[in-house]
Amino acid sequence: MTDPLNAVTEKEKGHDLPDSPRSVGWTRPERALLADEDTPLPLDCGENLYPVTVEFETYGKLSAAKDNAVFILHALSGDAHAAGWDAEWEKHKRPWRKDRPGWWDEMIGPGKAFDASRYFVVCANLLGSCYGTTGPWETNPRTGKPYGLDFPVVTVEDWVRLHVRLQDYLGIEKLLAVAGGSLGGQQALAWAINYPDRIRSAVIMAASARIGAQGLAFNAVGREAILSDPCFHEGQYYQHEPPRCGLELARMLGHITYLSQRSMEGKFGRRFQNGTEPGYRLNKEFCVESYLEHQGRSFVQRFDANSYLYLTRAMDYYDAAGTGSGLEAACSAIKARLLLMSFSSDWLYPPEDTREVAKAMLANKKPVSYIEIPSDYGHDAFLLEADQTSPLVASFLGRCD
Amino acid sequence: MTDPLNAVTEKEKGHDLPDSPRSVGWTRPERALLADEDTPLPLDCGENLYPVTVEFETYGKLSAAKDNAVFILHALSGDAHAAGWDAEWEKHKRPWRKDRPGWWDEMIGPGKAFDASRYFVVCANLLGSCYGTTGPWETNPRTGKPYGLDFPVVTVEDWVRLHVRLQDYLGIEKLLAVAGGSLGGQQALAWAINYPDRIRSAVIMAASARIGAQGLAFNAVGREAILSDPCFHEGQYYQHEPPRCGLELARMLGHITYLSQRSMEGKFGRRFQNGTEPGYRLNKEFCVESYLEHQGRSFVQRFDANSYLYLTRAMDYYDAAGTGSGLEAACSAIKARLLLMSFSSDWLYPPEDTREVAKAMLANKKPVSYIEIPSDYGHDAFLLEADQTSPLVASFLGRCD
Repeated sequence: MTDPLNAVTEKEKGHDLPDSPRSVGWTRPERALLADEDTPLPLDCGENLYPVTVEFETYGKLSAAKDNAVFILHALSGDAHAAGWDAEWEKHKRPWRKDRPGWWDEMIGPGKAFDASRYFVVCANLLGSCYGTTGPWETNPRTGKPYGLDFPVVTVEDWVRLHVRLQDYLGIEKLLAVAGGSLGGQQALAWAINYPDRIRSAVIMAASARIGAQGLAFNAVGREAILSDPCFHEGQYYQHEPPRCGLELARMLGHITYLSQRSMEGKFGRRFQNGTEPGYRLNKEFCVESYLEHQGRSFVQRFDANSYLYLTRAMDYYDAAGTGSGLEAACSAIKARLLLMSFSSDWLYPPEDTREVAKAMLANKKPVSYIEIPSDYGHDAFLLEADQTSPLVASFLGRCD
Repeated sequence: MTDPLNAVTEKEKGHDLPDSPRSVGWTRPERALLADEDTPLPLDCGENLYPVTVEFETYGKLSAAKDNAVFILHALSGDAHAAGWDAEWEKHKRPWRKDRPGWWDEMIGPGKAFDASRYFVVCANLLGSCYGTTGPWETNPRTGKPYGLDFPVVTVEDWVRLHVRLQDYLGIEKLLAVAGGSLGGQQALAWAINYPDRIRSAVIMAASARIGAQGLAFNAVGREAILSDPCFHEGQYYQHEPPRCGLELARMLGHITYLSQRSMEGKFGRRFQNGTEPGYRLNKEFCVESYLEHQGRSFVQRFDANSYLYLTRAMDYYDAAGTGSGLEAACSAIKARLLLMSFSSDWLYPPEDTREVAKAMLANKKPVSYIEIPSDYGHDAFLLEADQTSPLVASFLGRCD
């Protein structure tokens, strides 16, 4: 979900520059090979995938006791660059990182919620994404051409399985916390359920046990836009024009679901782009139209259409309740403390769905804090309400410390 | 908005067959030339359009005093065939009408809300639509080829202006009522404001003074899907393949906005199409996906992509408050009694927006009834809640009689 570009246009905040005492400063992505022929990554779909490389970033220092590590889990359009300023944006051809810090810079840094002077903060790019971790854009060593649609369908649980390998790679037995919003929150919940002994706490924002039928429907339309774009070529477009129109449409649509009705009304209303009189044209008339178009166009500069298909599908499949025993039974395995935060105007992961997780924890007599943050920002609030969420996160982590 | 196909799958009701005493029976569309070179139709955009033909249907008999006429106003995907069974579906190549009655058959017929044994009921297809009334599909006499995007941008007010000509053509000075839901409700409101002396009452369902920013945004994405379809050919696709994918996407998306979150959850939830275990595929997995695909595919069989562009744009532009003086001032012109009905789960035209019209009427000390109908059906409720709306409409019309 997360889109730093949007977060900034929403709030038009000043950034902490690299030399600010509150910034993690200049960052450099690292990569680790976490699955090879001898240690393939088993996936929920039944395949064993290798090789698998993961791109990640770290901020702060791991303590001698290795007990201060926090994994930040990114959402649909996010990446490993969660905070600070990318010193290697040119080398990796990521010009969109030039003028802005990582996507959760407001939350991560010395003195911030995820305090990089106290904690060792790690953020890794997801399997199937397009920012350095293995995904459909990468060459399939079996065929010598990009995976495209030959890439296996991955799940939230697969992502966590891979990132637990990163945890091992970094030599960390138990994380102080995992934390994320939206699809990142789903990962945090999956971590708590599937790896109860590997984390001490989980911060879950703007997420729930599963996305509802309406969310599935929006994702389906977005994917259909990509799949029906004539440039898609069954996912083998890397040597040609990518399916820009389809991805742009998917992003425009997704973007509507990240904002609330009220915030769209307040931000754009029915204002015309030019003047106050109607121009009687079929497009480019209302401000909200050009805004969405801008969101779509800038997204296709930095995201891969195949990754969009795979990541939204993982979002669809995730259901903490599993296909049988139910959410309460699933939560019985949890050993971590949970901090659940929903946002009042979020209609993609509505507060009542987050509350359901809190209730399942209570039914198991497990430690859980739940708060519904009042916000007009809709689903994007987890990126935009740092002023409200920071003290809560800081205090929660302090108690888990 | 209205989609009879959906209405039926939603409720799976039995129909009143043509020989039922509650059916208007077999119907035949009529056509009237309502604008020619000498009497062009002035449009809001400044153009004078001719020739303009209107397709319409009538049910019941006009009284000698000509005081029992009710105009039914259709929504986005509707047509003049509001009730009964089309005797000419084969002649006009409209096979989708074969097995089902008109789109508001539950509301129109002897003994029903719009009682065809008492009232003379008229329904006309909209300017720019594709069911017999002049639209972008028609040959432009100036060029000898279909209008396509040369068709002028039309507005809700243009539609009403044209249908007032139909009123004149039928020799009716004053209508007993105009009535419609969604875009039909917007027409009814425009009629009340712009032609106060031509109607005695207006029934406005699932509509308000204007669509909000989120509605504009959804319409913009739908149009973008059509405009970016390579088959669109700047609207001149009538000799080739139409832009099926784009129109299908637009319809899938629109459809989500016609249902409520709760009704989608209840109807589809997260059920798989096949079995209970995930198939790990990128599409055709969840029931809601195949449902939307079916909605999209059946729509492209019966609707024109250009018409979709023009009708959604008219929906966008409509603002009863105008660009200056405001809704209260606009409503000061109204002489008709208004019956306003909103539906609790409608998020395209939410109840609070309909209430705003009621308040503007009250501020002018004008006669208005407002009711919020409890319903889980979302925007489509105006088609599906006939059991709840019928007695209210019947009683309201009885009082206006």
